[in-house]
Amino acid sequence: MKKRDEQLHLGAFIYYTGHHSAGWRHPDSGVEQMFDIQLYKKLAQTAERGKFDMMFFADLLYVYGVDQAASGMLEPLTLLSALSQVTERIGLTATVSTTYSEPYNVARKFASLDFISGGRAGWNIVTSQQDIEANNYGKDKHPEHGLRYEMAREFVDVVTQLWDSWEDDALVLDREKGQFADPAKVTAIDYKGKWYSSKGPLNVPRPPQGYPVLIQAGSSGPGQDFAASIGEVVFTAQQSLAAAQTFYSEVHAKLAKYGRTDQELRIMPGLSPILGDTVEEAQRKYQELQALIPPDAAVRLLSGMLSFDLSSYPVDEELPDIPDPVEASNGMKSRIQLIMDMARKEKLSILELGRRILGARGHMQFVGTPEQLVDLMENWFHSYGCDGFNIMPPVLPDDLTDFVDKVIPILQQRGLFRDEYTGTTLREHLGLARPQVGHFRQAAVTS
Amino acid sequence: MKKRDEQLHLGAFIYYTGHHSAGWRHPDSGVEQMFDIQLYKKLAQTAERGKFDMMFFADLLYVYGVDQAASGMLEPLTLLSALSQVTERIGLTATVSTTYSEPYNVARKFASLDFISGGRAGWNIVTSQQDIEANNYGKDKHPEHGLRYEMAREFVDVVTQLWDSWEDDALVLDREKGQFADPAKVTAIDYKGKWYSSKGPLNVPRPPQGYPVLIQAGSSGPGQDFAASIGEVVFTAQQSLAAAQTFYSEVHAKLAKYGRTDQELRIMPGLSPILGDTVEEAQRKYQELQALIPPDAAVRLLSGMLSFDLSSYPVDEELPDIPDPVEASNGMKSRIQLIMDMARKEKLSILELGRRILGARGHMQFVGTPEQLVDLMENWFHSYGCDGFNIMPPVLPDDLTDFVDKVIPILQQRGLFRDEYTGTTLREHLGLARPQVGHFRQAAVTS
Repeated sequence: MKKRDEQLHLGAFIYYTGHHSAGWRHPDSGVEQMFDIQLYKKLAQTAERGKFDMMFFADLLYVYGVDQAASGMLEPLTLLSALSQVTERIGLTATVSTTYSEPYNVARKFASLDFISGGRAGWNIVTSQQDIEANNYGKDKHPEHGLRYEMAREFVDVVTQLWDSWEDDALVLDREKGQFADPAKVTAIDYKGKWYSSKGPLNVPRPPQGYPVLIQAGSSGPGQDFAASIGEVVFTAQQSLAAAQTFYSEVHAKLAKYGRTDQELRIMPGLSPILGDTVEEAQRKYQELQALIPPDAAVRLLSGMLSFDLSSYPVDEELPDIPDPVEASNGMKSRIQLIMDMARKEKLSILELGRRILGARGHMQFVGTPEQLVDLMENWFHSYGCDGFNIMPPVLPDDLTDFVDKVIPILQQRGLFRDEYTGTTLREHLGLARPQVGHFRQAAVTS
Repeated sequence: MKKRDEQLHLGAFIYYTGHHSAGWRHPDSGVEQMFDIQLYKKLAQTAERGKFDMMFFADLLYVYGVDQAASGMLEPLTLLSALSQVTERIGLTATVSTTYSEPYNVARKFASLDFISGGRAGWNIVTSQQDIEANNYGKDKHPEHGLRYEMAREFVDVVTQLWDSWEDDALVLDREKGQFADPAKVTAIDYKGKWYSSKGPLNVPRPPQGYPVLIQAGSSGPGQDFAASIGEVVFTAQQSLAAAQTFYSEVHAKLAKYGRTDQELRIMPGLSPILGDTVEEAQRKYQELQALIPPDAAVRLLSGMLSFDLSSYPVDEELPDIPDPVEASNGMKSRIQLIMDMARKEKLSILELGRRILGARGHMQFVGTPEQLVDLMENWFHSYGCDGFNIMPPVLPDDLTDFVDKVIPILQQRGLFRDEYTGTTLREHLGLARPQVGHFRQAAVTS
């Protein structure tokens, strides 16, 4: 059995002004500051006060439904670079799509962030989801699901090889001899792939962490293999402990195929906590938030997710038969399956289902007291359901502050979470070794 | 005649650890900190203490000659985002190539920087120079000079239209009604060009400055037209007042063709000052720096610039005949012409020419006292040679500190430079109006 870390790992997931889709309408939301660095500074400093392993910024490459939904996001790497100067320890991780970027640019930006933050950078590798994103980049269609992962795997190969293109001791800086770097230790990678090519070397030395931490969020079949091959942190949506345990063991079982060990992976499901001093208070807050979701937004979202227009069906009846929604969707396959299962099992109406999904967006929605939440977290952690959680406060900034003030102290009392940072880099927080040059190249060869 | 700004404008040009190619070998250079944010923080805070209009970060998309030359650069937007949090007023401008980026990404990154800096962002639009850059991005050849400008013009069209895709008052943020933005004021751009397409809208609202300031550095024929059509600041290499005056009047004469007025443009030549309390001291420092340039590096650079291998020619003789070097070069056409003229006129040997160019890299090299430097700056400014200068300290950080401590006070005493910032945005520092939605689109239609 895998040797567990002694304590769990926590990410602070930042998505608009709260993970709940109507969270921005709540009186506690900071929506007026959504494009103001002061909000993000407050969030980062709060999370750091709570000793979180990392900030985790989501990203989307389009705007949608600006009439009703909070939409538009400051570019996450821009935010993280700024936040690196107003924090000292917390990890800084952001989503960047492989489908709409250039490997050389991505390698360089994360290397640069790793330098300016003193080794606190992490990259959440996604492949994007929608045609609407392709359209912003001069393409008609978003590439098909399997193809995107094939491209992404190659993209990551190029990026890690570019990070390796300077050896750790390549810099000489000998003023007297006039030698800046050892040319034998700064070498072209001459990568020629099916989708991407790059000569290299990168124009930035090897990052302080070797590689910024590689985070991966796909939980479908190809997603799991991608995660097993290069994911150091896997972010996933799991609705029950049983499902989480299955996922946990399945991904770990695939590691050996890629020449990797159990110690190189941390699995962190999303968890959106709605907290109250009593269960009733938490329930009240949950109902308040759910009622803020406009019915047509719920139906529209559900239609979009299922690639099936539900607008002509009565909202208080169950879903009609939908021809193969998992296959029809080119997006988040594993998430769609979860939704369909939930709808059938609980006999939810279209509106209930739509609001349920929009609320926590497919992730685990917890409603209860801080003690109950810690019970759940402890149980999942000790039962091999996860190595930690990506915490998704429904309303920002206040629900993050609440978590730090009310949940973190209980976790600490039970010895489940650090009292102080012991390391300075994100890898140290996560207990991940610094990769040697060629680390994932070797893994790829083994596969 | 153009109504002049009352005072001149200054940029602090950051290039490796000094503009002089061997500057990193000087004892005062901060080369050990070249990948450490502390160096850039010091530079930014020094320039802000000097009330500079802006920091100006160069960029290259490759490494070259790591054995002898300072090489590799942290990605400039990463640096500027970080510096936005440790400065309050100074403009933050960076070079980003249109040839190796996506318009949607560039629009979003600069918009985000403009938000987090409170309206201090500027984009130095370049098209890159070398095949070695193309190779890092999966291409064999760098596009030809004229084509690059054609592509760049379209790229900038897409980016400015994306910045305009949210009207200034699009955000509603009405919690009660559940309206986030007015959908009539957030519109697709449906741009379909020859080289770039993007549907839009951007996923960030219109930036605080309307558009981040557009900076342009091409001084050749197509470069001048590009500058006249969209450049708000033009950065140029000029070796004499007469040449600078010609350039100044030529670019201004082209503005009307693009529907623009004299007040929309600021021309800022590069100026690399080597200072001493006496002329002799400055000369000594200049000679010291020049002697640090390795002879083979000088020959190699010159060969590269002229696209002609000089390695078999004696370094102490004049240049051989080179077949049409300006045409052969696909890079900096106007710079090559300057170099050839200088070589013939002064009968320089290959080594002298190579070292001369490597020293100031084609920009004006001043050697003398602070008083003499201010005389020159005043003369150029009052004689319509420029609206200010992009200051290129040969050795960083110390020569920037010197400039701030020794030159700025004289400029201020003569009323040539601000004592304090009066505005908060870069546009305000530069005296540039905030563009209305559609500003450059209109200009394009007129052309």
